Amino acid sequence: MINKVLIVGGVAGGASTAARLRRVNEDAQIIMFERGKYISFANCGLPYYIGGTIEQRDALFLQTPEAMKARFNIDVRVQNEVVSINKEEKYVEVKDLKTGEIYKETYDNLVLSPGSTPIKPPIPGIDKDNIFSLWNIPDTDAIKAFLDRRSVKKVTVIGGGFIGIEMAENMYDRGLEVNLVEMADQVMAPVDYDMAQLIHGHMAQKGIKLFLNNGVSSFEDKDDKTYVKLQDGTMLESDMVILSIGIRPNGELAKNAGLETNKRGGIVVDEYLKTSDDSIYAVGDAIEVVDYVNGSKTMIPLAGPANKQGRIVANNIVGKQEKYKGTMGTSVVKVFDLTVAATGNNEKTLNRLGKKYQEDYKISLVQPKSHAGYYPGAIPMTIKLMFDIKGKILGAEIIGYEGVDKRIDVIATLIKMGGTIYDLKELELAYAPPYSSAKDPVNMAGFSAENILNGDMEVVLWDEIDKEDKQNSIILDVRDDIELELGYIEGAKNIPVNSLRDRIDELDKNKEILVYCAIGIRGYIASRILTQKGYRAKNLIGGYNFYKCVVK
Amino acid sequence: MINKVLIVGGVAGGASTAARLRRVNEDAQIIMFERGKYISFANCGLPYYIGGTIEQRDALFLQTPEAMKARFNIDVRVQNEVVSINKEEKYVEVKDLKTGEIYKETYDNLVLSPGSTPIKPPIPGIDKDNIFSLWNIPDTDAIKAFLDRRSVKKVTVIGGGFIGIEMAENMYDRGLEVNLVEMADQVMAPVDYDMAQLIHGHMAQKGIKLFLNNGVSSFEDKDDKTYVKLQDGTMLESDMVILSIGIRPNGELAKNAGLETNKRGGIVVDEYLKTSDDSIYAVGDAIEVVDYVNGSKTMIPLAGPANKQGRIVANNIVGKQEKYKGTMGTSVVKVFDLTVAATGNNEKTLNRLGKKYQEDYKISLVQPKSHAGYYPGAIPMTIKLMFDIKGKILGAEIIGYEGVDKRIDVIATLIKMGGTIYDLKELELAYAPPYSSAKDPVNMAGFSAENILNGDMEVVLWDEIDKEDKQNSIILDVRDDIELELGYIEGAKNIPVNSLRDRIDELDKNKEILVYCAIGIRGYIASRILTQKGYRAKNLIGGYNFYKCVVK
Ligand SMILES: Cc1cc2nc3c(=O)[nH]c(=O)nc-3n(C[C@H](O)[C@H](O)[C@H](O)COP(=O)(O)OP(=O)(O)OC[C@H]3O[C@@H](n4cnc5c(N)ncnc54)[C@H](O)[C@@H]3O)c2cc1C
Ligand SMILES: Cc1cc2nc3c(=O)[nH]c(=O)nc-3n(C[C@H](O)[C@H](O)[C@H](O)COP(=O)(O)OP(=O)(O)OC[C@H]3O[C@@H](n4cnc5c(N)ncnc54)[C@H](O)[C@@H]3O)c2cc1C
Ligand SMILES: CC(C)(COP(=O)(O)OP(=O)(O)OC[C@H]1O[C@@H](n2cnc3c(N)ncnc32)[C@H](O)[C@@H]1OP(=O)(O)O)[C@@H](O)C(=O)NCCC(=O)NCCS
Ligand SMILES: CC(C)(COP(=O)(O)OP(=O)(O)OC[C@H]1O[C@@H](n2cnc3c(N)ncnc32)[C@H](O)[C@@H]1OP(=O)(O)O)[C@@H](O)C(=O)NCCC(=O)NCCS
Repeated sequence: MINKVLIVGGVAGGASTAARLRRVNEDAQIIMFERGKYISFANCGLPYYIGGTIEQRDALFLQTPEAMKARFNIDVRVQNEVVSINKEEKYVEVKDLKTGEIYKETYDNLVLSPGSTPIKPPIPGIDKDNIFSLWNIPDTDAIKAFLDRRSVKKVTVIGGGFIGIEMAENMYDRGLEVNLVEMADQVMAPVDYDMAQLIHGHMAQKGIKLFLNNGVSSFEDKDDKTYVKLQDGTMLESDMVILSIGIRPNGELAKNAGLETNKRGGIVVDEYLKTSDDSIYAVGDAIEVVDYVNGSKTMIPLAGPANKQGRIVANNIVGKQEKYKGTMGTSVVKVFDLTVAATGNNEKTLNRLGKKYQEDYKISLVQPKSHAGYYPGAIPMTIKLMFDIKGKILGAEIIGYEGVDKRIDVIATLIKMGGTIYDLKELELAYAPPYSSAKDPVNMAGFSAENILNGDMEVVLWDEIDKEDKQNSIILDVRDDIELELGYIEGAKNIPVNSLRDRIDELDKNKEILVYCAIGIRGYIASRILTQKGYRAKNLIGGYNFYKCVVK
Repeated sequence: MINKVLIVGGVAGGASTAARLRRVNEDAQIIMFERGKYISFANCGLPYYIGGTIEQRDALFLQTPEAMKARFNIDVRVQNEVVSINKEEKYVEVKDLKTGEIYKETYDNLVLSPGSTPIKPPIPGIDKDNIFSLWNIPDTDAIKAFLDRRSVKKVTVIGGGFIGIEMAENMYDRGLEVNLVEMADQVMAPVDYDMAQLIHGHMAQKGIKLFLNNGVSSFEDKDDKTYVKLQDGTMLESDMVILSIGIRPNGELAKNAGLETNKRGGIVVDEYLKTSDDSIYAVGDAIEVVDYVNGSKTMIPLAGPANKQGRIVANNIVGKQEKYKGTMGTSVVKVFDLTVAATGNNEKTLNRLGKKYQEDYKISLVQPKSHAGYYPGAIPMTIKLMFDIKGKILGAEIIGYEGVDKRIDVIATLIKMGGTIYDLKELELAYAPPYSSAKDPVNMAGFSAENILNGDMEVVLWDEIDKEDKQNSIILDVRDDIELELGYIEGAKNIPVNSLRDRIDELDKNKEILVYCAIGIRGYIASRILTQKGYRAKNLIGGYNFYKCVVK
């Protein structure tokens, strides 16, 4: 019998647990502690409220303590921080932040959903009052007030993750000049370096100034201005700075109570989301999860998993015994007009796990249109698909304008079901001209993957073609002559694909032919002709367009 | 060794076969016969060209005979009709429609993709020159010319399937008054009667006059006007009529050659898409396929399957031995601002197969928002999900405005993989506010399905609630009092869900409580409170909104 459940944290994971728990158990006493002033707010909406897309502050609140009481009979205690857990005697100590008073509350079950906290490294000058992090409602109010009351023209965003990018866009929407500084060689860690170049290009087009491979060494004041000083010496004049360089899990409470935590401070849970203590569960940003694709332990702080974990824990508390099977990190972000999405493992992850391209995994890269080309508004997306040598799908990254979220969700669904590229090509998806093509973009990724896997198409990647042995290979451009004006790869010979059958004798059979076209289809067709005529041929996947974008 | 392959039909299935075949076999002689003037045209785009959304006629042609020759070295013969097949001696007879000459062409393999033909029943007056079917380019040109040259104001569309509906919309886009006549009690056969009511409502709002349960008895002329006379006597003045009452497979060629065909004239093929003759394959609208969900034989004339079957046949001709695993009928159509989509089996199909609601299958009906409610533009969609009593997903129907195609594709992917409602609720889909919610609409359908399956939520449907024993039940409206102004179910008692715990004693424990709210969530929460307090309670799924829309 469950009599009393305490929940630490009143937002994504915590409030979800509370609501579900009440639905499955009308009688339990449920107390939800939240150290902040607000519960159930839309963390993910905060940048858009700052930018003005979300107009009403009220829209950010999905629940209030009063409404949670009325609907779910939950005792919500805001500004109440759980400061310690006594797991032996099953009680917590709570500090009422309004009064400073500390009190005890016993439990039968305790659920931890304390979330995470933005990292604020000890960079000189970081405590200035025009430097902000964005994590909760008070942060949002502070940023918004600063923007509304000061004459802010130049903003520097530090960190090119989800939040940094969303903030860059929202600051731009407010008409500000925006710098984005990122320590790595790319923004948006969920996608690989090559795909990230599409984002960099788009952001640059919008006028965002990107500073990659560059950390902040200090924040300095001069003539009433703050300057962000970068490691390479660049000084960025900034009326305001947004810090979003990463987060760390709020695992101290658990750790101090003697619960198992990992190196990064994340709370360790079993497949039922139970901590090392039998009465304590944990969910959300603060927990270590299993990578659904590769089985390793990882931390994936996202709202979808937090919400679903909350529901599972509620079920488990009432005895339903439901497993959480892992997180694959499906994610999406709007980057101005672009949509950037990923699911499963990217190449960086595969490589970190010691997997080798061509030996352990292969890549298909296609650029199909979002819907039927003859129906207005069709626009290409780039799909990078990683699969193992048996065809099992490991991950995907998609960047484009329309229908990107749809395709990543379809692939995420396949990954969840252990699907292969053969499943992908067979998928029967909804087709009418405004929505897709008779062969959907994901089918295309599947077809191309199959061709790669069964050897019908040998491929060369953007970072391989320049390294090929120039003595023993020919670079063959199969685009129409006029397309050469858009640029070409140095040293390429041009034979348009439609003339290839007639002019094939111009090519030396002893050399390897590295074929390319604009996006890869004609190159593929040419490579088919060549190989069947006894040539060794490889097709540059992604074509010249992708090559140019990545290699520049 | 394959030397010579003939293909009958030069559009979706035929051209796809030809292109793939060349890619996998550079040396075969490939001849593609098309009796019409055009190949590779966008059948699915024709209504939108007529309506003006697609502006250029040229956009409708994905390939031309010349381009197919240049790129794929395919001998395309338009205006050449294959009139007979001699399968013993492996040749076809072809009539050159330009000269009337008949000639023979031998084959090693023959591929049939003859498509289907619109039905034109012998209704009196059907041959008038202002009555059109829409199937190919000449039809399109004729309709467009008629519209452009005559002063057309009133159009009657006969048939409420995909094409009828698309034509109604496109005629409306041209500023015409549109009647739509349909013999059945609903338009859009892929969805069930209840879901179709959402379409009827939307079309009526747009000013389309719907005549359901009504066939055409004749077309009559009076004072220079054509009148469509309906079975109930209604006379619809019409400057123009579009007939789209169904199609029949072009199976005669196969039948006359002694190949196995089914009752409806469809060509019978095995799982390799081979006909009853070892050298002859068939694809597309003309073939009988296996229903992927229930395993029965059926006909599903859609472009996605036709294109994919073409690719499979090409593979099989060169010896790859690829199976076609069946069609589930995933489809989508734009109906003005609505998107209507379906996949798998609907209730009508399940019932036709003898399956009974509650015994053999269950239904979840949810109406979640297209993306996070706090981000502008979020708008609800209605998801009807059919699943068996083990949780296996059988089919889904979704109607809404934004993101409907995404959700149907995700569910189609799950069905393809044999997924269950448990998989559905666990799916980790891409979430950021502009795209979805932390619990995606399909997760919601999964949660609700689970609650139904494990008995946490007993349900009552729109067509059951009025039949319940009034003596022994109470209809309980748990919406807020002001919502009653939007209408209510006769005889309902109102206790807002937030007051239910306090006022529960007002309800008689001996009676069954039939709870409803606006869309079903509060009704569900109320039903959870009630059942845990010892009441028998059922929740009206879809809530009052759906009930009102269907029952009117
Ligand atoms: C600006 C922003 C944008 C985001 N955008 C997206 C997005 O688009 N998609 C996506 O999937 N995810 C997004 N996220 C991430 C997502 O919001 C989190 O993954 C999710 O909220 C984690 O849920 P949680 O319950 O673990 O933590 P939270 O939702 O952060 O809740 C934890 C709560 O616990 C409270 N707490 C901590 N310790 C204690 C204590 N000792 N006592 C009492 N209370 C305590 C904290 O005050 C906090 O309110 C975004 C986050 C932010 C900040
Ligand atoms: C207006 C319209 C809208 C549509 N919208 C959609 C949609 O949104 N989504 C969808 O999935 N599907 C849609 N379809 C259906 C889709 O176009 C068909 O399912 C698909 O084209 C079938 O391919 P097929 O190769 O079997 O037949 P077709 O593409 O019709 O090709 C068959 C060809 O064979 C030729 N032929 C027949 N007999 C002979 C012979 N004896 N000799 C030589 N040639 C012959 C015919 O002239 C015809 O051109 C639509 C169809 C139409 C007409
Ligand atoms: C607001 C909040 C408390 C809601 O939790 P919740 O009540 O579990 O979630 P919802 O309101 O979406 O309702 C889902 C429930 O309704 C049910 N439901 C949904 N539609 C239904 C319908 N039409 N008929 C019947 N039941 C329905 C679902 O089955 C589910 O119930 P279950 O979990 O018992 O199966 C929680 O999500 C929260 O605090 N969110 C804000 C914080 C956050 O998530 N931040 C990160 C994202 S910005
Ligand atoms: C035009 C038509 C002949 C095209 O057939 P197709 O060449 O097979 O199809 P596509 O042009 O889409 O190309 C697909 C091929 O390109 C390959 N491909 C796609 N993108 C690629 C890329 N970026 N790099 C390499 N290869 C790529 C695919 O793998 C596939 O090849 P495969 O089948 O050998 O594996 C045929 O679809 C047709 O006639 N359509 C019009 C009729 C019709 O379909 N009507 C109904 C819908 S309106």
